[in-house]
Amino acid sequence: MEHVSLPALSRVAICGGTHGNELSGVWIVREMQKQQVEKVGSISITTVMSNPRAVEACKRYMETDLNRCFTDAILSAPVTDVTPYEVRRAHELNAQLGPKGSQEAMDLVCDLHNTTANMGLCVIFTTFNWISLHIYKYLKSVCVVPEFVSELFLLFSTAFEVGPQPNGVVRADIYNLMKEALDHLVDWVQEFNSGITFEGGEVEAYVFEKSIDYPRDPDTNELTAIIHPQLQDKDFILLKPGDPIFLSFSGETVKYEGKELYPFFVNECAYYEKHIAFHLAQKTILTIPSVSVEND
Amino acid sequence: MEHVSLPALSRVAICGGTHGNELSGVWIVREMQKQQVEKVGSISITTVMSNPRAVEACKRYMETDLNRCFTDAILSAPVTDVTPYEVRRAHELNAQLGPKGSQEAMDLVCDLHNTTANMGLCVIFTTFNWISLHIYKYLKSVCVVPEFVSELFLLFSTAFEVGPQPNGVVRADIYNLMKEALDHLVDWVQEFNSGITFEGGEVEAYVFEKSIDYPRDPDTNELTAIIHPQLQDKDFILLKPGDPIFLSFSGETVKYEGKELYPFFVNECAYYEKHIAFHLAQKTILTIPSVSVEND
Repeated sequence: MEHVSLPALSRVAICGGTHGNELSGVWIVREMQKQQVEKVGSISITTVMSNPRAVEACKRYMETDLNRCFTDAILSAPVTDVTPYEVRRAHELNAQLGPKGSQEAMDLVCDLHNTTANMGLCVIFTTFNWISLHIYKYLKSVCVVPEFVSELFLLFSTAFEVGPQPNGVVRADIYNLMKEALDHLVDWVQEFNSGITFEGGEVEAYVFEKSIDYPRDPDTNELTAIIHPQLQDKDFILLKPGDPIFLSFSGETVKYEGKELYPFFVNECAYYEKHIAFHLAQKTILTIPSVSVEND
Repeated sequence: MEHVSLPALSRVAICGGTHGNELSGVWIVREMQKQQVEKVGSISITTVMSNPRAVEACKRYMETDLNRCFTDAILSAPVTDVTPYEVRRAHELNAQLGPKGSQEAMDLVCDLHNTTANMGLCVIFTTFNWISLHIYKYLKSVCVVPEFVSELFLLFSTAFEVGPQPNGVVRADIYNLMKEALDHLVDWVQEFNSGITFEGGEVEAYVFEKSIDYPRDPDTNELTAIIHPQLQDKDFILLKPGDPIFLSFSGETVKYEGKELYPFFVNECAYYEKHIAFHLAQKTILTIPSVSVEND
């Protein structure tokens, strides 16, 4: 694994508002559209407001979570009169930015998300690929200390997940962190396209292992406990057996049972309905090759 | 102003979910109802889920903000088929807990709120009264460092406003802070009813002066700037002329012009639609008398 040559990344899409109440990405895309950003050096830029109705309503989604609609099954099913808004929108986005896996597809899609969890700048990919890993390595070197997570079901290739920020709120610190990371991503792509070789090496990454739900009342399904104060805001800090994870409304502490893993998305607002109190990941070291652009 | 005797506080109401996505109060009231708390010592306790439909939907409100419906004008207008849900609910709550100003009304109503602003535990009253001020003085002495604000339009007498907590999320630290304050409030009322004299003295309070809106595009009404990082989370810290207050999406800093005042509700989620970026208050010192219960 010494060196890999890859095609140029000529077409980059930047998406905000995939979840309508995650406002940093919404405002970054609005601002880029207002300034009519369509080209940066060698790169053609497409800005997309993914779920405009949800943005308008300042809700995560109208009928169903758009970010769970980019599966082959959903994208290959026919659209009818009763198809939910987000499924129709997923078909439209797939036509505009894809089709997924085709020659016409965008070379890179960066989808901008916020979380109420204390995750800092977190870079999420659905599948390991050298470009994504090099961008992550670059971000780690230039500005911020991002975390890297592999997770399923995302819109396309790459997502920035930045927090903590409440839904429906823009915090300048979180907005600026996302903007800075996006600027660096564009810089990296320009340098890559210009022929620069990026050295390989080791990068740390977190690989999703499982989700943990809140304790619930078996009859009503309502929560009986919340995230323990000692776990709150402790994303990416090793969780050991016996560590407190939940505090019940009656004051009892629930302790973690299981092997040592790293929690993330701790107390994410949108995950209450998905029955996820937090995710757990393994930390791993990946060795990646150096990369440069193919000569045509 | 040496001593004031006041009637016993026999009937206390505790309200959660006046805003359906402010979850600390929702869960405190749910837990009290599950445990069927109806009496604590000398006090009869009424627990109320103020806006059950909004709680169910995890939204601030369904049709209109319930916490702006307790005006004499709204409460005296007739209810018809087209009356918004929250207005009907305000009439119901006024019948259950009031009528406001009547002999049958609750002696004390504590309404539980959360904010995305960094306000800690903040005690809000609509009108100055010795009971409210003594509860505030007691809270300051026993556990936490609450702030005290006089503001208009609230449900009834007393509100706890605790943050920062995102809408739709319960944080154990914020939940516990609210719960602790509520327990101390009930303790105070019990001690007051039992005949203890509470010494008077000086208390600091903030008096609402005005609201500041975000800079907006005059054509679209959309935000052109957000709260400046140097103002974010700085509730109740003196704002001086020349201090940064907004950061525009194009990177410019907007500075404060005006007299020295104290900001609060800085970057409260629900206030974007109300055109409020933050409130400003004057700090004042109030001298209050000692109080004890009247002998019947």
